[in-house]
Amino acid sequence: MRRTSLEGDLCAIARSLDVIGDWWSMLIIRDAIGGSRRFSEFQQNLGAARNILTTRLRSLVEEGILMRAPASDGSAYQEYLVTEKGMALVPVLVALAQWGSEYQFKGREARSVPVDARKGRPLKKIQLRSEDGRSLNPQDVLMRPAA
Amino acid sequence: MRRTSLEGDLCAIARSLDVIGDWWSMLIIRDAIGGSRRFSEFQQNLGAARNILTTRLRSLVEEGILMRAPASDGSAYQEYLVTEKGMALVPVLVALAQWGSEYQFKGREARSVPVDARKGRPLKKIQLRSEDGRSLNPQDVLMRPAA
Repeated sequence: MRRTSLEGDLCAIARSLDVIGDWWSMLIIRDAIGGSRRFSEFQQNLGAARNILTTRLRSLVEEGILMRAPASDGSAYQEYLVTEKGMALVPVLVALAQWGSEYQFKGREARSVPVDARKGRPLKKIQLRSEDGRSLNPQDVLMRPAA
Repeated sequence: MRRTSLEGDLCAIARSLDVIGDWWSMLIIRDAIGGSRRFSEFQQNLGAARNILTTRLRSLVEEGILMRAPASDGSAYQEYLVTEKGMALVPVLVALAQWGSEYQFKGREARSVPVDARKGRPLKKIQLRSEDGRSLNPQDVLMRPAA
């Protein structure tokens, strides 16, 4: 399938999706943030084919979301570390997790969700706010050109 | 490409991506939330091929993110409306937009971002918080099983 590039799109959502709008990429980022570092770890966690993983990792490095580093144990392996730009995707992962947890699980079904590292408790639900701090509902948000 | 289903995955992020982890689906949801209702409107805004759009719209209706309704002008056209479950994706779109705006645009480059409908100003940056209201950095968040 030919894919239109959204690289030059005016919309900030579209431009993000151009880089991370792929199921595998988001799962790789999730695992990397969770501490996975090696190709074999990603492969094992995700059950992804070698070629799929290779393409995605290369692209995430090119985009500055992951970076390559020599293995921390001195072996010949390469490791993938999350950059600051990659860590800045945590709110996207949390928003995805909170939506999924609310709508894609049954009542008390077991699930894995983002928790506060200190207390191990699920995060507070994301609250959208205006510049001046008013709490906003989804209906109060529009996509508009901004300076 | 064969796609593993994440439908039964324990991870709430994975389960969301199973439903909306596709570039086109997120753009359709963005446009539907922005007021697009008809097949032809989505087609024109997105420049997507008919078959791509048909598959995605059907799946979004099946998942309860969009619903079909008779055209509001009494014509024979069908319209797609956003459900409450669909509107609950606004925080995901806002998180994507804020990340994209920060990392995928140059300084003063023109962009379209989520704004507060009342004042037309960009939203405050999403702040992750613990259950008891402490402000959290990306490093303070872990993915863990929760009851």
